[in-house]
This record gives sequence, structure tokens and C-alpha cells, in this order.
Amino acid sequence: MISKNQLKLIKALESKKQRKKNGLFLVQGEKNVAELFNSNFSVQQLYATADYINNNGALLTEHNLIPLVVEASEEDLKRAGTLVSNNSVLAIVKCKEVALPAIAENELILVLDQVGDPGNLGTILRAADWYGIKNVVCSPDCADFYNPKVIAATMGSFARVSVSHTELVEYLNVQTKPIYGAFLEGENIHKAHLNKSAFIVMGSESHGISAPVEQFITDKITIPNFGQAESLNVAMATGIILDNFKR
Amino acid sequence: MISKNQLKLIKALESKKQRKKNGLFLVQGEKNVAELFNSNFSVQQLYATADYINNNGALLTEHNLIPLVVEASEEDLKRAGTLVSNNSVLAIVKCKEVALPAIAENELILVLDQVGDPGNLGTILRAADWYGIKNVVCSPDCADFYNPKVIAATMGSFARVSVSHTELVEYLNVQTKPIYGAFLEGENIHKAHLNKSAFIVMGSESHGISAPVEQFITDKITIPNFGQAESLNVAMATGIILDNFKR
Repeated sequence: MISKNQLKLIKALESKKQRKKNGLFLVQGEKNVAELFNSNFSVQQLYATADYINNNGALLTEHNLIPLVVEASEEDLKRAGTLVSNNSVLAIVKCKEVALPAIAENELILVLDQVGDPGNLGTILRAADWYGIKNVVCSPDCADFYNPKVIAATMGSFARVSVSHTELVEYLNVQTKPIYGAFLEGENIHKAHLNKSAFIVMGSESHGISAPVEQFITDKITIPNFGQAESLNVAMATGIILDNFKR
Repeated sequence: MISKNQLKLIKALESKKQRKKNGLFLVQGEKNVAELFNSNFSVQQLYATADYINNNGALLTEHNLIPLVVEASEEDLKRAGTLVSNNSVLAIVKCKEVALPAIAENELILVLDQVGDPGNLGTILRAADWYGIKNVVCSPDCADFYNPKVIAATMGSFARVSVSHTELVEYLNVQTKPIYGAFLEGENIHKAHLNKSAFIVMGSESHGISAPVEQFITDKITIPNFGQAESLNVAMATGIILDNFKR
């Protein structure tokens, strides 16, 4: 059973302020929790239905999680968590300190400027993971990586992609070139030479890359438009650009 | 002011059954309504704030919409509609009969099998519009094209892409080849020869392309995976595949 105080903590972790204060975040749903177990994130408490515990005994034993498991009904888990369905398991997990990444040979680092929608950030992290991106650097006004909606939208990729939040101007100022940036009027990515070791900066859907960040862009790139839509969703654009860099 | 009966109708149009019964759907927000005016959809009624009416007098006159305009407060529009913000205008619009598309020279037709999430369908239509796709054919169990969440997610592209819902087996059975289908194990799209006149079938995220539809696929294709994510969001995958066909 989830105690009153436990429920209060779980509910509190929906807010960024409380996640920061407690150094904890939520991971919900079988898929995301399975990926969590395979990561170096540290589980503090695991709430799960009797069915989940029965079906995952070996897994829980292997990861030394049995002492951390609290049994709860699916109804209680649904009330506690933020998911509409898939409420058989919910983990309280310790946030991690992530060092700002420097670039390695043949590495792409994704940089996100003001990507505020949590669903978009989660979808971007899932695509980044698909394309083998290890590091994503977000401006402070991006959606919070630990937001339950971000974690849910990553479909497990949160466990493999390192995400940091920092002032992009200070970060980009000390990085090596090239720094690509997506603009509506840049070089056609179907024709541009795309370096395999690079930073790729994506801006918000409504405002694009902000002026202070734009000054660090060495190569403006564009997805060519064959129709009449004015823009693409930022997550979609990120996936398409990564596909072009990786081909 | 929005009358009680008008409010009842607007609320009813959130349901697919009522949209079908009345032959009407909702278009909300300045951007989508502006695109609506430039389309061949027929507006039946337009609810707008005094500010919107003042700022768009010329536009409303040009499209002979003045007799259809009902002034309403932003609060009333927010209560009536489905959007969290951007509630200065809401249109009731007549649904259109769309003939099932045959393929033209150098045309790609997108076919969606069981894409149930309205946000995904809307994002797909926006990307289709970006890549100049004119026709999208959906299985009956896809999200309804006229769902307000679909229309909102298209960011205006609903006005330019023709969408029909039909049984895919009957439809594909009489179409010319090739019919490409996205699978987790198909030919690498970075290396495949992709025909410029073709059908592209995308399946649901959880179940892929259904068995009855799979029999019509002539070419199985795959977005190559460079990392560890198990799959991509279906809208993202569609955008990436269209980018590869169009390059």
C-alpha cells in the first residue's frame, strides 16, 4: 500500500521545484522501468502491483530491488502517477549529476534551445537514441528532462541518453567547431557536406534559435520544403536532420 | 454571444459520431482558421472576439464571411472550444466528400494503417504537406481526420492535404505498384532505390502494419538504427521516410 506520506512525495515529484529539492524523479510504466533497471540510475523505491511483482521476480532479484518494492493496487498506482494507462509499476529514482559533454571523434552532440514542450523533448531523446546520440544539452528554459511527460515520451531512451541543462552561450563558447543550426533559410541538408563530429543546435518551434545562441552557429542548415507547410514540428525536424547526418 | 444551442452543437462536434451526423467539424485558432479561408472548405459559422473581427475585417470581407460571424468573448470561446490557448476564433465547417486517390506521375500517396493517436495523425499531415504529398489514405481505425486534436496538430496543413478513410485492403487491391511499407526489418532506406511514384504504408506504433495490409506491400523498407531505441514515433518515422523519398 502507498502510505499518505509516500503519496504526497510522488505527487510532489510532478513539479520541477520539488524534483530539484528532493533530487528525485518518477519513472512509470513497464517499458520505462525495464530500461531503468538496465541503466546506472539508482532506484529509491518501487511501487508495483502483485501481478507485476510475480511476473518480474527474477528481474527484481537480479537488480537487488526486492527490499525497495512496495505492493500497491493498480487503482492506487493510477491515482499516484501521471499515466492514463500502464500503471502496474512506478519507481522513485535519484536524479543524476551529468557533466557537460565535450565532443569525441565521430560524435554528434544535440543542443536544444528553448524546446519547452515535454512531449517534444521526450520524442527528440527517443530519436537521438535511435541515431546513437549519447549527449543532449538543453537550455535552462527547455522542458525539464526529469518531467514525467518527458520520461514517458522517451519510451525508455531516457536511460541511455545523457541530458544536461545549462546556459548555451557559456557552453557553446568553449566548444570546438562546427556548430550546425537549423534555420528556415540555411543550406539544403540534402546537398550540404555534413561533418560527422559536430554540434547540432535546434531552436524552439515558435521562435527558432535565439539571437545569443545564433552567433555561435558556423553552418546554417535547412530541411528542403517540397510543399506548402510553413514549418515542421521541432521533434520531427530533429529526427530528419539526424537521419541526414548519419547517412 | 454564443447561444445555448450553438454551444451544444460546438460541444457535440468533439465526438466523431456527431461530426458524421451533422457533417460538420471545428477549426480553431488564428493560424488554422487563416488556412481554412484559403481552402475550398465551406465555413458555416464563425465565432470570434471583437479584436479578431477588427483586425481581420478585410480578410472576412474578401471571403464573404461577414454574414457568418458571431462575436463572442475569449472566455466563451475557450469554454466552447478544445484549445487551452489561442481562443480568438472558432469556425464550424462543412465536412467534404473526398474521392479515393489514384496515383499520378511522380506522386507519393501516404497510406496509414491504424494510426490511432490524433496528435500523431496531425503531425503526419503537417509533414506530408511539407514534402508536397497531396493525398493521405487512412484505415477506418485511424484517428478521425476531423477530430479537433488532429486539425490543431496539422498547423494549417489540414486545408491542403486530402485525407480519406477507407478499408485499406479494398483500396490497395486495385492500385498500381510499388507499394512500400515501413517495417523494422526491411531494406535500408539510405541504400534502397526509392521510386518517385509510389504508395508508402505506415503502420501503428504498437502493432506495425497489419497482416491483411502487409500482403500488398511490394517493398519493405527500414530506417537504419544507429543506437539502442527499439522504435521511432510513427509521425517521426513518416517524416524521415518522406525525406528519403524526396531527396
